Amino acid sequence: MSPSETPAPEIAATPEPPYYAVIFTSSRTEGDRGYGSMSDEMLRLAAARPGFLGVESAREGVGITVSYWRDLESIGLWKRDADHLAAQRLGRETWYEQYAVRIAKVEKAYGFQREKLNTAPPVSRSAGRSGPATAGR
Amino acid sequence: MSPSETPAPEIAATPEPPYYAVIFTSSRTEGDRGYGSMSDEMLRLAAARPGFLGVESAREGVGITVSYWRDLESIGLWKRDADHLAAQRLGRETWYEQYAVRIAKVEKAYGFQREKLNTAPPVSRSAGRSGPATAGR
Repeated sequence: MSPSETPAPEIAATPEPPYYAVIFTSSRTEGDRGYGSMSDEMLRLAAARPGFLGVESAREGVGITVSYWRDLESIGLWKRDADHLAAQRLGRETWYEQYAVRIAKVEKAYGFQREKLNTAPPVSRSAGRSGPATAGR
Repeated sequence: MSPSETPAPEIAATPEPPYYAVIFTSSRTEGDRGYGSMSDEMLRLAAARPGFLGVESAREGVGITVSYWRDLESIGLWKRDADHLAAQRLGRETWYEQYAVRIAKVEKAYGFQREKLNTAPPVSRSAGRSGPATAGR
């Protein structure tokens, strides 16, 4: 996924636990083969589902996408969504060498946000990144 | 972290659930400032701790490191490790703009491993990647 195709990478602003995380770790096959556009489309569809709380994603050799959900029911409904089922099939047929899915209940969460110091040079792209990483910290 | 500094990215071979995941998501400050070598050292130390089950890591704008542990006690002991405490302090002082830590109990896990087909061209670096992503699939 190129930066122009996807939203800016962010730390998800999730509510106080408990909630659920789906940890999807994958290694890709060679070449895009439609993966980037389908991946973006799945993120858009997932974000519109009831119970979706946020997502974090990075690929550097291995790809890790963690999506956060209100409960197991929300996760199950998204897993069985027709468009998502088609994408899962294409993933096994075409895009993924290997993947692991882990469904986990988030029991505790905390975070850190650097204060904007006068000693740091102003960086324009840091605008809008202030505020808590997770709600309720 | 450059590829030469770190082990090849891999999907962790974890046992059957239940076990725990620590999801660490971060955005970095500019420049390395000793981050790469300390990050490698922390991975080595964590991997030697009792209860450590595996780790997956990628950075692409946002960084995501998921470490897997036998139980909450193992996680607590590593969190309070002296070397790790020093690294955590440096992280807040120097390396991280923002981070979130989520501790989650993995309740379910499954995976996929592509079969090696004769139609696929041989790729030397795929050697050694065969076998299940997670034990017991």
